[in-house]
Amino acid sequence: MDKINVALCQMKTIADKEENLKRAEEMIIDAAIHGAQIVVLPEMFNTPYDIRAFGGYAEGEVGPTCQMLARAAKQNNVVVVGGSIPERDEEYIYNTSFVYDQQGLRIAKYRKKYLFDVEIPGELTFRESRVLSHGAKSIVFTAYGHKFGLAICFDIRFPEYIQKLSKKGAEAIIMPASFNTTTGPAHWEILGRARAVDNQCYMVMVATSPDANNNYQSHGHSMVVDPWGEICTSADVDETMLLWTMDFTKVTEIRARLPLLGIRAERKKDKV
Amino acid sequence: MDKINVALCQMKTIADKEENLKRAEEMIIDAAIHGAQIVVLPEMFNTPYDIRAFGGYAEGEVGPTCQMLARAAKQNNVVVVGGSIPERDEEYIYNTSFVYDQQGLRIAKYRKKYLFDVEIPGELTFRESRVLSHGAKSIVFTAYGHKFGLAICFDIRFPEYIQKLSKKGAEAIIMPASFNTTTGPAHWEILGRARAVDNQCYMVMVATSPDANNNYQSHGHSMVVDPWGEICTSADVDETMLLWTMDFTKVTEIRARLPLLGIRAERKKDKV
Repeated sequence: MDKINVALCQMKTIADKEENLKRAEEMIIDAAIHGAQIVVLPEMFNTPYDIRAFGGYAEGEVGPTCQMLARAAKQNNVVVVGGSIPERDEEYIYNTSFVYDQQGLRIAKYRKKYLFDVEIPGELTFRESRVLSHGAKSIVFTAYGHKFGLAICFDIRFPEYIQKLSKKGAEAIIMPASFNTTTGPAHWEILGRARAVDNQCYMVMVATSPDANNNYQSHGHSMVVDPWGEICTSADVDETMLLWTMDFTKVTEIRARLPLLGIRAERKKDKV
Repeated sequence: MDKINVALCQMKTIADKEENLKRAEEMIIDAAIHGAQIVVLPEMFNTPYDIRAFGGYAEGEVGPTCQMLARAAKQNNVVVVGGSIPERDEEYIYNTSFVYDQQGLRIAKYRKKYLFDVEIPGELTFRESRVLSHGAKSIVFTAYGHKFGLAICFDIRFPEYIQKLSKKGAEAIIMPASFNTTTGPAHWEILGRARAVDNQCYMVMVATSPDANNNYQSHGHSMVVDPWGEICTSADVDETMLLWTMDFTKVTEIRARLPLLGIRAERKKDKV
């Protein structure tokens, strides 16, 4: 099918984990009722975005968060991209996105490769790498006959990662995220649009909604960008759900107009 | 020195080659009078931007265009980035940028790597690769104690090329260009700002001013973008000269805040 409905769930995340899971499931149900075929949650949706919290909220794939995601996918007959959660694997914690299909089967698992380390004096210091380990593999999954690449937040700053996904055939990049009020206004939109233009693909960028009780204030502004770099739909900061119909003929058409991916592959052979 | 004045000469290019050279030299002189230390001309500044014209306007490094550039650099005590010209080398023609220092010595020569091939039905068809050969090397030169990377127009669509320049130490990318009225409004600004943000460097983007007599209509809009992605100064479409003082302490400061280049190098070692 050429057209696929995607839902972007811009949810608040609070200190109460059970409430976060309940809210996420409600949003998935609501998205399915409104015709969504793929439902996307934001980054670290079961925990406040805080390096001191991640350890306590971390679970393995058998934990209650993944159980909820699998159940919600199956019961609502949708593909669920479970934003990301702190995933515990032995002594390590990762920032991981789990994807479930309409049968509730896990079809992809992506561990954030580029951890968010920033130090802006007087404004913001955040070092994910103090508590998290990074993944190493780029992940593309197939749904409804199309290929979707997974990226998480800070990954978007590395064009080489997004290029790997498009080289593997991704026609849309699904990106759970949580930019902040310093880097968000400066870079969120530019980066999303530029990655769409460079890779001639859809960008589906799903952020948390900020909550005044959290230390880290999310920028929100979830959005879909089309393969020509146009913003199709975007949110403000409040909790909300966006729905958009991605038309994959646009990807084919734009890649034919400007054969960037072919030229890129051709020049890479030069090796100079 | 931390601060360097750059001049962006957004000149018209017409069918009369001698007039183009005269106009370029006048703009270099004017820029020097106004305190410029580096003067940048646009892409293919001695010829109309037309694949049927390039062969007739092409010259080698000993031709009148490079002679003018060398003389103007020396007489005005400035570094001149001679936009680009069709360069003849035996049976090949390249889209080449020559750079001369204050002594009139050629300090860099860059042949456009990514040739502009586009086919937008009903709007625009252009195939540089029909008449031009592509270069293969990334080029960085040093002036006033700082490193400058060279890119030409369509090269900006390939983040891997701009990354090579920043990896080689470029703190500013000098880019003679000639986007058009289809791709310009859609992508010129996004691409310039995103490359600045990704590489935490200045982007100096110098376009031709459109001329109604030409087949190919340039987008104009020359601009300087700072390493945080902010547009410092920008032109409209008319012939004009922009002057900007680049402050290289900004590059160092922003690279310390968000250590993108270090993280990029670190993750590349993963090789997965």
